[in-house]
Amino acid sequence: MNIEIISIGDELLIGQTINTNAGWMGEQLLNAGMRVQWVSTVGDEYDHLVDALKLAESRADFVLMTGGLGPTHDDITKKVMCDYFNAKLILDQEVLAMVQERFRKRGIVMVKVNEDQALVPDKAEVIKNQMGTAPGMIFRKEGKSFYVMPGVPFEMKVMMADAIIPDMISRYRGVFSVRKTLATTGIPESTLFETMGDIAKIERFARVAFLPDLAGVKIRLTAAGQDHDHARRNLEEAEKMVRGNIEKFIFADDDIKLEEAIARMLIENKKTLAVAESCTGGLISNQFTNIPGSSSFFIGGVVSYSNNAKMELQGVPQELLSEYGAVSEQVACAMAAGARKRFGTDYAISTTGIAGPSGGSTEKPVGLVCVGYTDAQETVARRYMFFQDRLGNKARFSQAAMNLLRTRLLSRKE
Amino acid sequence: MNIEIISIGDELLIGQTINTNAGWMGEQLLNAGMRVQWVSTVGDEYDHLVDALKLAESRADFVLMTGGLGPTHDDITKKVMCDYFNAKLILDQEVLAMVQERFRKRGIVMVKVNEDQALVPDKAEVIKNQMGTAPGMIFRKEGKSFYVMPGVPFEMKVMMADAIIPDMISRYRGVFSVRKTLATTGIPESTLFETMGDIAKIERFARVAFLPDLAGVKIRLTAAGQDHDHARRNLEEAEKMVRGNIEKFIFADDDIKLEEAIARMLIENKKTLAVAESCTGGLISNQFTNIPGSSSFFIGGVVSYSNNAKMELQGVPQELLSEYGAVSEQVACAMAAGARKRFGTDYAISTTGIAGPSGGSTEKPVGLVCVGYTDAQETVARRYMFFQDRLGNKARFSQAAMNLLRTRLLSRKE
Repeated sequence: MNIEIISIGDELLIGQTINTNAGWMGEQLLNAGMRVQWVSTVGDEYDHLVDALKLAESRADFVLMTGGLGPTHDDITKKVMCDYFNAKLILDQEVLAMVQERFRKRGIVMVKVNEDQALVPDKAEVIKNQMGTAPGMIFRKEGKSFYVMPGVPFEMKVMMADAIIPDMISRYRGVFSVRKTLATTGIPESTLFETMGDIAKIERFARVAFLPDLAGVKIRLTAAGQDHDHARRNLEEAEKMVRGNIEKFIFADDDIKLEEAIARMLIENKKTLAVAESCTGGLISNQFTNIPGSSSFFIGGVVSYSNNAKMELQGVPQELLSEYGAVSEQVACAMAAGARKRFGTDYAISTTGIAGPSGGSTEKPVGLVCVGYTDAQETVARRYMFFQDRLGNKARFSQAAMNLLRTRLLSRKE
Repeated sequence: MNIEIISIGDELLIGQTINTNAGWMGEQLLNAGMRVQWVSTVGDEYDHLVDALKLAESRADFVLMTGGLGPTHDDITKKVMCDYFNAKLILDQEVLAMVQERFRKRGIVMVKVNEDQALVPDKAEVIKNQMGTAPGMIFRKEGKSFYVMPGVPFEMKVMMADAIIPDMISRYRGVFSVRKTLATTGIPESTLFETMGDIAKIERFARVAFLPDLAGVKIRLTAAGQDHDHARRNLEEAEKMVRGNIEKFIFADDDIKLEEAIARMLIENKKTLAVAESCTGGLISNQFTNIPGSSSFFIGGVVSYSNNAKMELQGVPQELLSEYGAVSEQVACAMAAGARKRFGTDYAISTTGIAGPSGGSTEKPVGLVCVGYTDAQETVARRYMFFQDRLGNKARFSQAAMNLLRTRLLSRKE
């Protein structure tokens, strides 16, 4: 059975909004054993949306649509669906009551266009919106289902989880598929490919895909089977073959971020961390504190852009700064040691470098970073060169510091 | 003339990679006066890619494709293009030399699959890849152009800027369009819509779209015209009408972030800023330091998750913490004042709150935040409630603190 997503909105076509919804939906569906085949993105144009619907109906069994359900004039999805399914709008008293209650709770005056949110097509099953005003809708036609959701991510997500995925599972007939991701770092994609051995052999059991990004290369294995167990056995066979030659580059056996892998290690060993950042400007702290429950291991961080701040807040001696410069292994070590002392943690890491686009020199070019690590026994630093733009460099610097921490934690365990 | 983007890769369908390329390309093309009509996303499947090509050829004049050019077996785009255009692969000596040079410079051994990157279809114009190993390609057919690029964002971006957009501009014939975005904050979408007046009147001059996100609502105006001047005049007329009633909610008249608007104000007035963060965990520092040149106004920040860190590093008196609790206006004020003193800045802002999912209580629920602001004359705090998930709350908290700063800076100016 085939699945298509139709993402609606001019803002997606002109890049004012990045289409994160489609990816999120694809991931959730795969976790439920179902694969998306197509994503079609169209603007707020009546004819284009109708054409996309026709195409989707011709090739997919499930069509998931997001966007264009808002209260303003450029939201045309409900009108298109009414015309496409020859339906009329009727007032849904339950939805109206929910919308009114919502405005009452927030203490905001409800304007006329919000009432229109309670108008629903008479041929649709209505999905209540727990997080906003626009209800979702399900249309059925010749065994095919069309799900219509708002484009606002957190409204869509609740509808997907509560109503749509359960509905799809109950109707889905097809091959079951399972997947696993092995997250690697410190090895380029092409080397990984050659090191891994005979892909054709591995692919007898599972499809292999390589996903490189600023944080490393992820290897995704997808196996199919007649039932869950069969698919799972194929996946395990493929994983064993993949791991053979590249074990040491794998930092996690699921699709998680490096900071999440580190968080697991710290929580498991009841250890704490502090961060001293210069060039990464708070990124590392932000990444760690994005993890729910991070307060159990992440104690705090300091972001120092000026030399004064490095001396005052991170305990870096002025002599080091003048002798070696702010971007040096020595200062990276002093920053890490200073942060560990200040925050009283087991470990601390640090970054000092030049993210660009300006501020570089021949000796210390844009992309240069020194990252530091310290614990009760040792303080070490590493120097790296990267070649990205400002945000890319910040991301690489952060990864380098985290990976230094990860490898030191591993060597502690041995 | 119509433009279609085809994004290729299983990882996009299952959400392992978010399709940021399509949005970026749409934005760049619009800046060059051209609008994307469709984005089709397909997996690494031969037949699906061929179907997408056929559909695109039937409706678009320009087809931009990204992805599937890597060195591994799951990259099928080059093969599909060869078959579709009946072309043969030939070795391009120039590309081979570039690939070899690239590996030599990085000091990495070049493996066999990398050599294959220098095989190009004999019917394609080759676009050199300045940032990676896979060359881009242009195919022509009956006045239509097909551009093929790698999916790696920074490789694609350089090709777009250097080769593809110039090529498209030289071939593009059609209506010229211009756009402008007015960024608002502190007013919900529906209220904005009703306050703005007669949309139909405004739309005689420009299309109006509302783009709500965690940072506020952006209003995008898109005007068309026979030439650039005509389009520009229509846009100006529409902007004047829009601004009439909602002027005070607009923080920028281009598509920038709140931190960028604040950065402009600080740089213009040669003022400096420090940040004391608890619940936002480095996010605000990270947002400010994402801005190139931020070192001219952003001095530093402290991230304190524990009460000890708040006392030690942010100068928050223990009495305040025990009397009012960490999440209180009093502690927010003390954190801001402490950071301003520590870093010696003109202004400082602070956040203390509960991002969730755990850590809330009846009195201080998840979503509660206090944000603080201080300068030489005053120290103030505000209390807000938000209803997002952890990352959403962090984003809203950050916006609330920044907006407090923005409104205080504006009142200073008056």
